[in-house]
Amino acid sequence: MEIHPGNHEIKDVYKLLTAAVTPRPIGWISSINAKGERNLAPFSFFNVVGYDPPHVIFSPISPNGRKKDTLANVLETGEFVVNMVTENLAEQMNKTSAPLPPEADEFEFAGLTPQASVLVKPFRVLESPIHFECKLVHHYSFRDRQNGSTVLIGEVVLIHVADEILKPGFKIDTDLYKTIGKMEGGMYCRTSDQFFISRDIPIK
Amino acid sequence: MEIHPGNHEIKDVYKLLTAAVTPRPIGWISSINAKGERNLAPFSFFNVVGYDPPHVIFSPISPNGRKKDTLANVLETGEFVVNMVTENLAEQMNKTSAPLPPEADEFEFAGLTPQASVLVKPFRVLESPIHFECKLVHHYSFRDRQNGSTVLIGEVVLIHVADEILKPGFKIDTDLYKTIGKMEGGMYCRTSDQFFISRDIPIK
Repeated sequence: MEIHPGNHEIKDVYKLLTAAVTPRPIGWISSINAKGERNLAPFSFFNVVGYDPPHVIFSPISPNGRKKDTLANVLETGEFVVNMVTENLAEQMNKTSAPLPPEADEFEFAGLTPQASVLVKPFRVLESPIHFECKLVHHYSFRDRQNGSTVLIGEVVLIHVADEILKPGFKIDTDLYKTIGKMEGGMYCRTSDQFFISRDIPIK
Repeated sequence: MEIHPGNHEIKDVYKLLTAAVTPRPIGWISSINAKGERNLAPFSFFNVVGYDPPHVIFSPISPNGRKKDTLANVLETGEFVVNMVTENLAEQMNKTSAPLPPEADEFEFAGLTPQASVLVKPFRVLESPIHFECKLVHHYSFRDRQNGSTVLIGEVVLIHVADEILKPGFKIDTDLYKTIGKMEGGMYCRTSDQFFISRDIPIK
């Protein structure tokens, strides 16, 4: 079936895209506004996009063009932190997606511990085993009928990895570090069911 | 542990980032150059970034600053197709990551069927159940010590979904549509092990 996105309701296009592009990694983004009010929210329009130097992207939706707290904060301060989400943090991550007022603190609402960062102002989630401290380097916005989007590109200036999950040789202990991925609707996948394919491809 | 990316070898930073940001969706990108030579390669620095209208990003690495075929083609023609990767296509997807010369055809090398697109020139992978025909709208490059990266943002102008996996109400039959995610090294995860969290969060 051929689907011309402009001929369908926005919610249907959303449903289709988020079911088609899976599994999506989750960037749990903490930010802060000029008044010092903290924000924390999960984004699955998120990924790493390079490593020399490391860069990540995430892309908040602006419903009816209205900027949500995270986007407003990052554009205001140029800084954010990515906290990675593991299985044991799924429920608390989900709580931070609640539409709280700007002055509300999602750390407190979800029972999480804010920990000061080193090179940027936003706090980290102490309970998360990996944090990326980031500076905004570029952004690109688009909007058609209703909901705008802004792709934010950040350089990772400092990486924190919990000692328990870091093995010699910059390896992460994946038996302990269990990330989850976002599927459609309220569905998530564990990363428990893995397989290996060799990258050595014989070329005749 | 605090890790300043610039103080470590690029390969170690790569290893850490690709183990930390998981599971990553796979965009299997087909492109074509001005001479009409086809290219097909998988990218896990890929995601959907908005739906009104739909946009995707992917980010090829340029080793020592040298553009690979996909990047060169997309910058030259402004068009690409994303083919989604399911479990049964994993081995063939992996084969298309082989470093073939520019004039070689990865479709042929991996035993895949090129299918003409409707609105763009690059061919689709017939065996893949979902294709996004895309036009490049924006790109952003960065490079530090060795390997450059270019974040390519494309608007999805047409979506193809195989009839077998599309259910009424723009739902995808996830029992049939089994995507895989990229983990570190040659590891992949299936999306078989799923759970649900309600988005209705009580706010007192």
